[in-house]
Amino acid sequence: MASDFSVTLKNGISTQVSFISSMKDLSRIIEGCQGNVLLVADANSAYLVPDQIKNRVILPPGERYKTWQAVERIVSAALDAHLARDSVMIALGGGVVCDITALSASLYMRGCRLILVPTTLLCMVDASLGGKTAIDFEGGKNLIGTFYPAEKVLVAPQTLDSLPESEYISGLGEVLKHAFLSGDEELYDFLHSRCDRILSRDRGTLVEMLGLSLHVKASYIERDPEEKKGIRQALNLGHTFAHALESIETFGISHGIAVAWGVSRAVACSYAKGLVDDEFVHKADGLLRMYGYDIDMRVAPKRWDDFIAAVGKDKKRASGSVRFVLLEGFGKPVLSPVEDDLVRSLVVQGA
Amino acid sequence: MASDFSVTLKNGISTQVSFISSMKDLSRIIEGCQGNVLLVADANSAYLVPDQIKNRVILPPGERYKTWQAVERIVSAALDAHLARDSVMIALGGGVVCDITALSASLYMRGCRLILVPTTLLCMVDASLGGKTAIDFEGGKNLIGTFYPAEKVLVAPQTLDSLPESEYISGLGEVLKHAFLSGDEELYDFLHSRCDRILSRDRGTLVEMLGLSLHVKASYIERDPEEKKGIRQALNLGHTFAHALESIETFGISHGIAVAWGVSRAVACSYAKGLVDDEFVHKADGLLRMYGYDIDMRVAPKRWDDFIAAVGKDKKRASGSVRFVLLEGFGKPVLSPVEDDLVRSLVVQGA
Repeated sequence: MASDFSVTLKNGISTQVSFISSMKDLSRIIEGCQGNVLLVADANSAYLVPDQIKNRVILPPGERYKTWQAVERIVSAALDAHLARDSVMIALGGGVVCDITALSASLYMRGCRLILVPTTLLCMVDASLGGKTAIDFEGGKNLIGTFYPAEKVLVAPQTLDSLPESEYISGLGEVLKHAFLSGDEELYDFLHSRCDRILSRDRGTLVEMLGLSLHVKASYIERDPEEKKGIRQALNLGHTFAHALESIETFGISHGIAVAWGVSRAVACSYAKGLVDDEFVHKADGLLRMYGYDIDMRVAPKRWDDFIAAVGKDKKRASGSVRFVLLEGFGKPVLSPVEDDLVRSLVVQGA
Repeated sequence: MASDFSVTLKNGISTQVSFISSMKDLSRIIEGCQGNVLLVADANSAYLVPDQIKNRVILPPGERYKTWQAVERIVSAALDAHLARDSVMIALGGGVVCDITALSASLYMRGCRLILVPTTLLCMVDASLGGKTAIDFEGGKNLIGTFYPAEKVLVAPQTLDSLPESEYISGLGEVLKHAFLSGDEELYDFLHSRCDRILSRDRGTLVEMLGLSLHVKASYIERDPEEKKGIRQALNLGHTFAHALESIETFGISHGIAVAWGVSRAVACSYAKGLVDDEFVHKADGLLRMYGYDIDMRVAPKRWDDFIAAVGKDKKRASGSVRFVLLEGFGKPVLSPVEDDLVRSLVVQGA
């Protein structure tokens, strides 16, 4: 197993990231918890819940249940199970389960203890680390939430064995993104040289990849835990393009696939602005293609208005204009506005 | 006006406490805010809202509206008014309005800016400082909430001119409590020597009293912002007795009156345990009586079972047993369990 490590976040609180080799390890950790425990899963992850856990909430799966009603179910169950401020809530599932449970833990009696056990690759490398909690509200994704780091994140790579291929590829999109945010190119080299083993989900290789990817994320959030200094935003590399694509894709596109495409657009944009050279573009596009991502995807001209309107919606998060995450090289993100004409030339068919 | 001061709370965030002499000052401060502003008041405080504020939510007054629905109204209005993470929510009202608005600000896009303008004495000396936010849930008071200090608390003493006498006396109960939590006896001496002016609400005297009282509270919360070290709990002096009394009082008793009674019971309990001498009891009871509080109130024997059950409910907040805040002298709180028999002898008629 990769080494455990800890990440110091908001208010000096540390999140301990540990790799566990089986659900038995989870049972042992739960037995070691003082006081009452409440476990939250969804219908997809319920089969992993250890038998000994009597206090459990099983949520319906899916983003559309990422609502206040889910938080109320959890808080209500916590009351029934007599949880106190020093009791533990445990989330076992993907990003939706982890985000909802973490929000509930941050709100219950103004904060109880929290352990996250992510069961999807996307959640392992993205949602579980960094303290962001959320529910959706009035159509706005993650509009209501808190910053509340888990005390432990338990990564159980074997849960990835049964993950559907589409979800696995989706999670890899975020891993690839991290490769470009790391200055030492260690993750890039790893992804470049171990593609086959990663795609075949070799356990040992995955553990190493997860460790490298999480360390990149940790290096950004440690310097800017509440996203107030313009550092943590770098983790949104590719996301302004990706969110706009996701919002106009009527038939749905997985998040990681949109992110991989968005990263390629951000790299192209960085090149157009003279921030990186051909060689960097070649390396970036090469890695994305190696993993099978379709970076040649383009938006139909008639959808351009919808696309740029969706880009504008990111505006609501800050009073100023939209700032894209661009790159000046490996591990050198910069935040910059991008003119609409340039965006158009990068995303529209035949532009 | 008393000097402004700032209190450093959670995560190094400071709350600036300022005294303002009129609502015109509030208008000037709001004009100075960058970006959009949303103001929240209730039907009681709505008349104080400056005309220039177009984005406003007026909540129905009262504890029974301290619910998630109120938070949703505020978040929804914030979206309509295009508030961003760097925009400001302002609460203008008593404890309920401040608690709900502060919770909403902590949740909106994971936290926007927050200014509190308390309009009741209780809220000025208690709810506005310290970062506790809350709504009630399934009958549990303040069961859902966060720690989210306001960036500014604007204290406008002239709003106290029109406060109903019962609410004024209720707020004074918390001020008196602070007198016993301060080691230098400055607040005690002030309350002792200025009783007439305080009861007649002399503006200058009130400003001084508010400053002294807030400094006592600040000294506890600065050392233990999230109530995790057993220091901030001292601010609950008298509250275990008070909450139990409030919960069995079918006809309602105001919070401050219950707190003043609870402080006298905590002092009596401290005496019974040999922690303080007669002189301290004499000074404490003397001050409470001077302000007209009925510290001789006792619980009918047939209500004892309900009373002690209510004491037990405080248990739910921590896995262990109920710990009362007792005193070893001015500014010397200690947390200690108290045997039921002793509690009974202190609160029951003829016991």
